Amino acid sequence: MEWTREERYRPYQQYSALELLHLQAAADNSPEQLRYHIRPSSGLLNDPNGFSYFNHAWHVFYQSFPFGATHGLKSWMHMQSTDLVHWHSRGLALTPDNEYDSHGAYSGSAKQIGDRLFLMYTGNHRDQDWNRTPFQLGAWMNQNNQVTKLKQPLFRNPDYISEHFRDPQLLEYDGKYYALLGAQDAKTETGHLALWASDDLQDGWHDVGLTNFTPYPMGYMIECPNLVMIDDHAVLIFCPQGLEQKITHYDNIYPNTYIIGDEFDFENATLKGSSQVPVNLDEGFDVYATQAFNAPDGTAYAISWVGLPDINYPTDEQTWANCLSQVKELHIRNGQLYQQPVAAMTNLRDPKGTKVFSNRTSIIDDHAGQQCELNLTISADQTGVLHLAANEDLSASLQIQFDTNTGALTVDRSRVGATVAKKYGTTRSIKLPAHQDLKLQIFLDHSLAEIFVNDGEQVLTLRYFADQQHQKIAFAQPINATGSLYQLKNI
Amino acid sequence: MEWTREERYRPYQQYSALELLHLQAAADNSPEQLRYHIRPSSGLLNDPNGFSYFNHAWHVFYQSFPFGATHGLKSWMHMQSTDLVHWHSRGLALTPDNEYDSHGAYSGSAKQIGDRLFLMYTGNHRDQDWNRTPFQLGAWMNQNNQVTKLKQPLFRNPDYISEHFRDPQLLEYDGKYYALLGAQDAKTETGHLALWASDDLQDGWHDVGLTNFTPYPMGYMIECPNLVMIDDHAVLIFCPQGLEQKITHYDNIYPNTYIIGDEFDFENATLKGSSQVPVNLDEGFDVYATQAFNAPDGTAYAISWVGLPDINYPTDEQTWANCLSQVKELHIRNGQLYQQPVAAMTNLRDPKGTKVFSNRTSIIDDHAGQQCELNLTISADQTGVLHLAANEDLSASLQIQFDTNTGALTVDRSRVGATVAKKYGTTRSIKLPAHQDLKLQIFLDHSLAEIFVNDGEQVLTLRYFADQQHQKIAFAQPINATGSLYQLKNI
Repeated sequence: MEWTREERYRPYQQYSALELLHLQAAADNSPEQLRYHIRPSSGLLNDPNGFSYFNHAWHVFYQSFPFGATHGLKSWMHMQSTDLVHWHSRGLALTPDNEYDSHGAYSGSAKQIGDRLFLMYTGNHRDQDWNRTPFQLGAWMNQNNQVTKLKQPLFRNPDYISEHFRDPQLLEYDGKYYALLGAQDAKTETGHLALWASDDLQDGWHDVGLTNFTPYPMGYMIECPNLVMIDDHAVLIFCPQGLEQKITHYDNIYPNTYIIGDEFDFENATLKGSSQVPVNLDEGFDVYATQAFNAPDGTAYAISWVGLPDINYPTDEQTWANCLSQVKELHIRNGQLYQQPVAAMTNLRDPKGTKVFSNRTSIIDDHAGQQCELNLTISADQTGVLHLAANEDLSASLQIQFDTNTGALTVDRSRVGATVAKKYGTTRSIKLPAHQDLKLQIFLDHSLAEIFVNDGEQVLTLRYFADQQHQKIAFAQPINATGSLYQLKNI
Repeated sequence: MEWTREERYRPYQQYSALELLHLQAAADNSPEQLRYHIRPSSGLLNDPNGFSYFNHAWHVFYQSFPFGATHGLKSWMHMQSTDLVHWHSRGLALTPDNEYDSHGAYSGSAKQIGDRLFLMYTGNHRDQDWNRTPFQLGAWMNQNNQVTKLKQPLFRNPDYISEHFRDPQLLEYDGKYYALLGAQDAKTETGHLALWASDDLQDGWHDVGLTNFTPYPMGYMIECPNLVMIDDHAVLIFCPQGLEQKITHYDNIYPNTYIIGDEFDFENATLKGSSQVPVNLDEGFDVYATQAFNAPDGTAYAISWVGLPDINYPTDEQTWANCLSQVKELHIRNGQLYQQPVAAMTNLRDPKGTKVFSNRTSIIDDHAGQQCELNLTISADQTGVLHLAANEDLSASLQIQFDTNTGALTVDRSRVGATVAKKYGTTRSIKLPAHQDLKLQIFLDHSLAEIFVNDGEQVLTLRYFADQQHQKIAFAQPINATGSLYQLKNI
């Protein structure tokens, strides 16, 4: 289905309730639908927004176009959880309904201030000639989850920043409020991180300056910046668009990267002790727009959009698209970022659906299904292929090719089903330590695979679109491996 | 808000998607909202429909008017579960969209036939003069939950039955299909159960006759009949409207009752060995339209509408209304019907939120919350009051007054918060065996209480509308009692 601009930006009140009910039922009943991840109630989901802790619960919102699998007029849909795993819909939270967000309530963040949650986001406004103005906007959410927008914008792009000025992350430091934003220099058309500050949140926002965090050019734009403290390191997580491959190699259309520093100097907008070179946050096919924040106890958590701008997915035809990743707990060990499932993920394991295996293993499970967790240790000095979501003779599967001799792992989604973004390749490869055991923790959720390598030292996240009857998990030939397979419950 | 007839019967495509999204968010965020029961995604919920097992899952649908807390144009909304406890929305399943169900896809049942689920329901049709014709309709649901309606009605009311002819329960016996329906004699305006039969389901439906199951008059109409086998007894569960109090005493506007028989003679439409006098299925304030069926293993399960026709509830002002009960497993012991929580209900217990108490107990928990299960044994020969959802000084609470000396229990909702259906009284009382311990299993879900007495020999189900900050559970004075309190998780 081709969407015209007019259709994509049609006000929500001009769509019918019957149409929406049918779209919701289509998403509910899709065979490829996620069952323990956040997914759109209908239509398209993109960036996670407002990931926060407030009023004894975890909150995350997602960018939503409820009326189809296209990037149309965006709103914020609200999800709430008490354990970072079981998420429950709290419905439409931010609607594009005024002059400043007329063409989309775009991405942003949330932070508890007093007994309310402050939502800071980018209002996308276009005039009659389709010229864009990005307004940085605020709204309060009370303890009943009711949202009231501020009447006036907090600030807009200064002259030297183009229309690409968005995704504010609200931070508090030393009694002041700061906003970190993705920004494009109007003259040079290069990507930057802008830092703004305010004493009282609502008024007097002023430009601190562009952030110093790397000597390298960051392409033509940076989206979705996050500054987060991880084990006493200041870490920037962000999405540079148009980043040169010689700076950081990446395979996806746009990468989602991070840079580790010692600390962040808010007054001078500088990441001190920066590692300078962006590193891929996820080595899979589909992670973008990751949002991270520090919980009240200081722990850093992240959640990602599993989907990419300008990429189509097979479920588009079913009128819905994309999902969020599971929440990942972030740590730094030996100067490297680790991402791990949160503790409560183990509560999804169905005690009746556990299978333990050891020694020379070939078939792990003929009917593992596609809603499971596989924990696996593959002994050193072997090569082989692990087939996931496979048919009986393993001719169709999601392949993990491993070599624990020289140390290499490749995920190959070329033979699993409908292809996705073939232009950007059908394999993703990482290096492993040579001659060492390989630990894999693999989550399958019908059309999503999350592969945590060696306790989260590396993560590969990807969508796959297999026949849902292809439920076998097996090695191509017997392999020295031990592990457990768990069936996982719906959330 | 007053609803005009025109507003109530406005086609779904004339409501806007924005309106529906706001209604869904309002239901999602209501402080009184149920968190582990089936509740409307928006608007009003009434009868459970199509309770069945199909395609490795449990299914139940509910009567829905999605656009407000009024009995408007009804559809079927679909819920699915693998354990009878964790239900997940599968969205709009039957829409009122043709000549035969133009004024509502009314209640009915579902049954697996071959590899599909057959939905049998009443289409509510009204002509321009608002004269009603009740059509009995069919639809097939496939393994992807897609519903296709039959083009022609199965049958309509014969001349001797008035417009009140609805709620077909589809049954299969000895290679034939049968439908049991609520029916009103056109001439005498009395309530009956009609039995119809067909050899091949789609054609040739014929009238077997009115069912013989009691010598007493059953008021002016019977709604929602179910024939179910419980421990080798044939049991009729039904809702007589206008039943004389001298036949069966009841307090609610309409009762939901049952009659136990030895067996059901389909050829002669007769409940053999009938206990004749209807007995209240639930002794609380709010159960109606219970739907029961036999699972493939023969076990009888029931689920009830918690709500009553012609009664307003405080959440009406919040644009949503009503819920379904938890699923109850049915048994017969000593000639009496027992209703018990299904086994998987224990999976809702949060292991971190358990509290055990014994001996002379006064305060059970100062902050029990309103999402919990209380299992309690009160020793014989005591009188007292148990306060649920209570404020600090117990002046506001849902009261359970008990007397294990003479044997009596009263639930009093007059002091818990906003009043409901005051016209029909604010207390419900039952008799207990004298000089015996009293076992109570009480489930609270924010605005719903389900009280199972003595292992389900009696059940009292009711809505209550307390301040959600009233979280205390305590006896008025110390009582000899033992038990456990569990916090329960959301579904």
